[in-house]
This record gives sequence, C-alpha cells and structure tokens, in this order.
Amino acid sequence: MRSVSIVGQGLTRFGERWDKSLRELVAEAGLAAVKDSGIDGHKIEAVYGGTMASGRLIGQEHIGALIADQMGLNPLPAHRMEAACASGSIALRNAMLAIASGEHDIVAVGGVEKMTEVDAGEVSTALGGAGDQETELFHGATFPALYALMARRHMKEYGTTEEQMATVSVKNHKNAMDNPYAQFHKEFTLDQVMNSGYVASPLKLLDCSPITDGAAAVILAATDVAKKYSEQPIEIIGSGQASGTIALTGRKNLTGIEATTIASKIAFEKAKLTQKDVDFAEVHDCFTIAEIMAIEDLGFFKKGEGGKATEQGKTAMDGEIPINTSGGLKGKGHPVGATGVAQAIEAVQQLQNKAGKRQIKDANIGLTHNVGGSGATVVVNLYRRAQ
Amino acid sequence: MRSVSIVGQGLTRFGERWDKSLRELVAEAGLAAVKDSGIDGHKIEAVYGGTMASGRLIGQEHIGALIADQMGLNPLPAHRMEAACASGSIALRNAMLAIASGEHDIVAVGGVEKMTEVDAGEVSTALGGAGDQETELFHGATFPALYALMARRHMKEYGTTEEQMATVSVKNHKNAMDNPYAQFHKEFTLDQVMNSGYVASPLKLLDCSPITDGAAAVILAATDVAKKYSEQPIEIIGSGQASGTIALTGRKNLTGIEATTIASKIAFEKAKLTQKDVDFAEVHDCFTIAEIMAIEDLGFFKKGEGGKATEQGKTAMDGEIPINTSGGLKGKGHPVGATGVAQAIEAVQQLQNKAGKRQIKDANIGLTHNVGGSGATVVVNLYRRAQ
Repeated sequence: MRSVSIVGQGLTRFGERWDKSLRELVAEAGLAAVKDSGIDGHKIEAVYGGTMASGRLIGQEHIGALIADQMGLNPLPAHRMEAACASGSIALRNAMLAIASGEHDIVAVGGVEKMTEVDAGEVSTALGGAGDQETELFHGATFPALYALMARRHMKEYGTTEEQMATVSVKNHKNAMDNPYAQFHKEFTLDQVMNSGYVASPLKLLDCSPITDGAAAVILAATDVAKKYSEQPIEIIGSGQASGTIALTGRKNLTGIEATTIASKIAFEKAKLTQKDVDFAEVHDCFTIAEIMAIEDLGFFKKGEGGKATEQGKTAMDGEIPINTSGGLKGKGHPVGATGVAQAIEAVQQLQNKAGKRQIKDANIGLTHNVGGSGATVVVNLYRRAQ
Repeated sequence: MRSVSIVGQGLTRFGERWDKSLRELVAEAGLAAVKDSGIDGHKIEAVYGGTMASGRLIGQEHIGALIADQMGLNPLPAHRMEAACASGSIALRNAMLAIASGEHDIVAVGGVEKMTEVDAGEVSTALGGAGDQETELFHGATFPALYALMARRHMKEYGTTEEQMATVSVKNHKNAMDNPYAQFHKEFTLDQVMNSGYVASPLKLLDCSPITDGAAAVILAATDVAKKYSEQPIEIIGSGQASGTIALTGRKNLTGIEATTIASKIAFEKAKLTQKDVDFAEVHDCFTIAEIMAIEDLGFFKKGEGGKATEQGKTAMDGEIPINTSGGLKGKGHPVGATGVAQAIEAVQQLQNKAGKRQIKDANIGLTHNVGGSGATVVVNLYRRAQ
C-alpha cells in the first residue's frame, strides 16, 4: 500500500475556550498545520474532520463541510467521521486510505470538539451516546460508571489498587506541566488524587479526564510527495482498527478492551515491529483505569501488571516506556473529536525532536492508541521518521 | 485506481417504522444485502455507516460500531460518516476508497436514519444542523425556508412556476407507486399538490420530502473480486465529491448548487462519459425545486429550463432521461443517512434489470446525485454493469 506521512501539525490550546467557537478552533489548528507543513494551501485536495457530538453540543452537524468552508477550502471534498472519542483517529485513518488509494496526494485532517457551551449533565448525556443508549445510557450508566465497573473488576481480578490508578493521574498531570497546549498546568500529589471526591466509585474526580474545548489538525501526504515539502515527514508505518461490542454487557471480560489487542496486533504486523521497538506511546486515558488496561492490552506489560508497573515508575518520562508524555487525556484535556489527532501530533513532535521539555531521548518509534466509547472502537497507529 | 463494484443490496421499507429501532432497521437492510451478494458474511472486512443526526434523534452516536455489533461483524473496523443528507454517499465513497487503497477487498456499507421517534419540531431543528447553525438555524431558518429562497430566486430569474415544481411531485409520487419499499403509495394530481398548504412559500407540503425511518445497505468489492461472487456486479465508474459554503449567504447565486456542477464534472471525467451517455438518474429532490436545479446543474438541461423540461415530461419514466424512477426522496421517502445508499441501490436494480414495474429500457449507464444541506456537500456517482 502507498506509504503516507504527516507533514504538518497544529493545535489549539485545550481547555475551556469561551473565546472561540468550534469553527474558530478548527480553523486555528488547521491554519497552524498548513503553516507548519510549508505546503501551499491550494495543494490540499480533501478535508477529513473528526467530531463526536456537535449535533448535541452546539446544534451543528455537517462538520466536514463547515471546516472546508471555514478554512477557505471549498470546493474540496469534505467529510466528517465519527466513532465517539476515536473520531479523530477514524478521520486520520480514512484520510490515509484516501491517499493510499491514489485519489489524493495531500489531505488536511482536523479533529475538534466544543464541549463547554452546554451544562455538564447535557455533556454527560451526549457522551453517553458513545456507549449503548438502550442498555446503558437509558438506565443512567454514563461513562464514569462504565469505567468504574471495569476498574472494580480489574481490582478484583488482579489486585489493582486505587493508589495505582491515582499514580496515572499524578504522572499525566506532571507531564502536562511541560505541554503549552494542555488544559491543566497543575501538579497533584497522590494524596490529593486519593482525596478527591468519588464520581463513580472507585473512580474519583482526579481519575477522570476533563470536559474540554479544542482542536488538532495534521496535513497528510503520500510519503514520496511529503519529502518534497517537509524536512522530516513522520510516516504512519502501521495502522490497525478494530471494534468491540457497543455495550459492556456483550464483553467476555471487563478487565481489558479486546479491540485494543486486535488493533495493536494488526498495527504491529503491518509495521513489522514488536512492543520492544516502541519508544513512547500516547494511550487513551479517559479514566486512569483505562491507561492501566491499555498498557496491558497493547502488550507493554502482562495482563494485571499495569497498575504495579505504573506505581514502579515504568511508564514515567524516564521509565522503560514513557506513556502519555503529552499529559494524556487527563492532563492535556480531552476534546473528544480532537483527541486522536492530538495523539498523532505528540508522536510527530517527539519524533521530530520538537517536544521541548517533554522530549524523550532516542525517540524512534511512537505508538498512539485511541478508544471510542468503552472499547467499541479502537485505533492503534505506529510512527517513525520517514526514511 | 483499483475498480470497485456493488455486489449486493438490501433495503428496508421506508416510512414511519414504529415497529423497528435504528439498529433493527440497519440489520434488516444489511443482512438482505449480504444475502443478495451471495458472499459469506465472514469475508466482509470493514463496515462503513452513514447517519446524520442519530445523536439528536435517538441519543445514540458511535453508529459504525453499533452496526458492526448488531450485524455480528465485530471486530471489523467500523466507521460512521456524516455529511448531513449526503451521509450515505460519503460512507459509500470512503468504503470505495478503502477498497481502492488495497486495505480491504469486501466492505459492507449501511445508511440509516430513525427520524420519527421525536416530534416534528425537534426533527426540523436536528435537520437544521445540516445548514449553518450560526447564521441560519439560530435565526429560525429551517430547510423548507432555505430551499424556498432558492425557489423564489429561480422563479424570478428563469420564470419557473409553482406548477412546474408541482409536476416534480406528481411524477415522483407516480414512480413510487411501483416501488415496494417506498414510504408513499399514493398518486397526487397537479391540483392536489397546488392546493396543499404552504410550508414556506412557494413550497407547499407536497413539494417537500417527508420525515422517514429506513435503512439501505450495499456490499462493495474490488471488481476483480466481485466477479467471483456476483453474476452481475455494478461498477462505480466515476465518483465526484465537492463542497460549497455551509450557509446560503456565502453563495454567488441561489439558482443552483455549484458543488453539483463541480462534482458531476469530476465524475464524468473519471468515467470518460458525457451527460448524453446517461440513461437514468436518481437526483436529490428533498424539495421539488431541488430536482429542477439538479437536472440543470448536472447538465441534463440548460440552466433555467429544468422546470419546463419537467412539465414537458422529459424526466418522466418514458421521457428523454427518466429522473427518480425509485420515486425519489419525495415519493420513496428520505431517511437522510440512508438516502445516498438507497440511490445507489436504484441504480443497481435498474442496471441489473431487476426494477420490476419501474424498469426502464436499455439501462446501461446510471447516475446518482446526493446533496448534504443546502448544497455544502454533493456526491455524484456513475454506474454501469462491470465489464
């Protein structure tokens, strides 16, 4: 298949962005990405946008066309892709396939969500649409409750502790301190996380990723084309996507996400790499338990040992495998449609040696892991500097 | 680019489907498509779903994963695509590109919308999200109003009459009589259409497509693979997609949809065909004026002559170019996410000589035209029997 690389990236600051509308956020990120790529905007051939719940949150659907319009990219073909919190990755992946097909050479991908214009109850209900409306949300099970069920089962099966989960939060907030685009620039102690109020036991406020406004954009190009423009394109060397049941009740077990295992297996096979080759990873820590499950399901640690590994510092910035150097969803923020694209941007910045104070040494292979819902969609991508 | 064909198709009956939920509708259409294809379901490699406003209408996002789950297609990669009323076509097109890229050989595409579970005001508001929430919907301009503006301008510029628009409705309701899946099986006289109440002058109730529940599904395969399974695969020989401004206020003129002209030009160029080669077309008649504009913008008739051509019977079943043999959105119904896929199915049925009483003679080349919003997204596809 034709190789595809990222040649430009742009982010907005994540957070409560009362100053900017959805369309302004995505234009800011998009224009930054075009500028970073050095490619004349007129050479872009299509637009792929990822957004989860703009219909519920701001009364606007048809986000692909809106992005094209806002960025002055009419009449290019424009698409909106949705797979809950993995919407950005689905957009990125389909843009990649469109280039691989030969239909396009250069494509703009934007992920965006504007979440703070409605009250928290409405946001929770809108996000609940990522799970099963009929068997979960209708009965009151919003996302903290679903992940709390997974956490309880993980604790029972493997002895994972609330302190271990809290360590994920402490680490990711620490990492976010060095990310200028992060929603939070505030460190927390283990005690502070442990003493934050329960949202859905055993998950506390500081185990949960926040409600966030923000956008992220990348410019993709066929790798042979990319080299004409970028000094250092970042190639997507393996991409895997898998789906699981929409409802937790359909799963064989609750201590992991099977779609993660399947998607990562596909991505590693395509890249002809193993877990040992990966130097850093951005994983989907919508809740702290989600990061612990992810580092197990991705094969970085054995099943049940993710909590302990985190506690031992193995996933810290100077650990065996730094996880969520960006701050993750917990520290950087989680504008759901933007998250998958923002994860790719952290991979690009690390591999281009442009991650500033977050830069890890000898970053050669990066991985991103983006989950939709409670695991009904998972996308895993592997990246390296284009050769 | 690798050639792609449709090898199976399935529809639900369109209408007020109080008996079935969204997931049941899409499964019914999907399973019918798999059965029609003769392909073992285990050979399907990915799922592409088109839905516009499920978040607003039934509280459910993440429709790609839901479809995969409901059809027993986990853990295949599953996607939801949205481009307002062109959502189904966007799903179809991206599925086609995924096959063209070599990533997949056989892909299931489903379009679905469940619109009747909320009241009409909420449906209008949800559909309004296809236009510009900030400059249109917020100020009360729902879709009948937007198309009424276009109709008024078309009447002023070209002398198009309300009777000519009404003729579109009479024709499409007549065609729908022979479509067992159509929402309406009721003929109307010109007088009845003219005497139906104004919704947004000059558009009357019988100028407007209805609110509909329904689903449509096709199985796509690389044409070389398709021939192993299907006696008569239908090849997509040209596909064009273009975008226009999200709001009417950004358009150079209101008497046509520029994105239609651009998308059709691309499709015809790819297929190496001209308008004269087309034997029938399914066009986006969300309002009767939309069909008149479409047959002009697609190049079947000169600008301004669409109304007259309709009045003269040139677009009737036995006319120069039969338009909307299925009954169109007006007669067949318009479950928005399903419409683009359902249009493709009419092309398949006509080209496979399986359209029953609707069958036109010598159907060799078919065209579909699907519009999102007031023209911010347009997809035009051309089809023929795979050689």
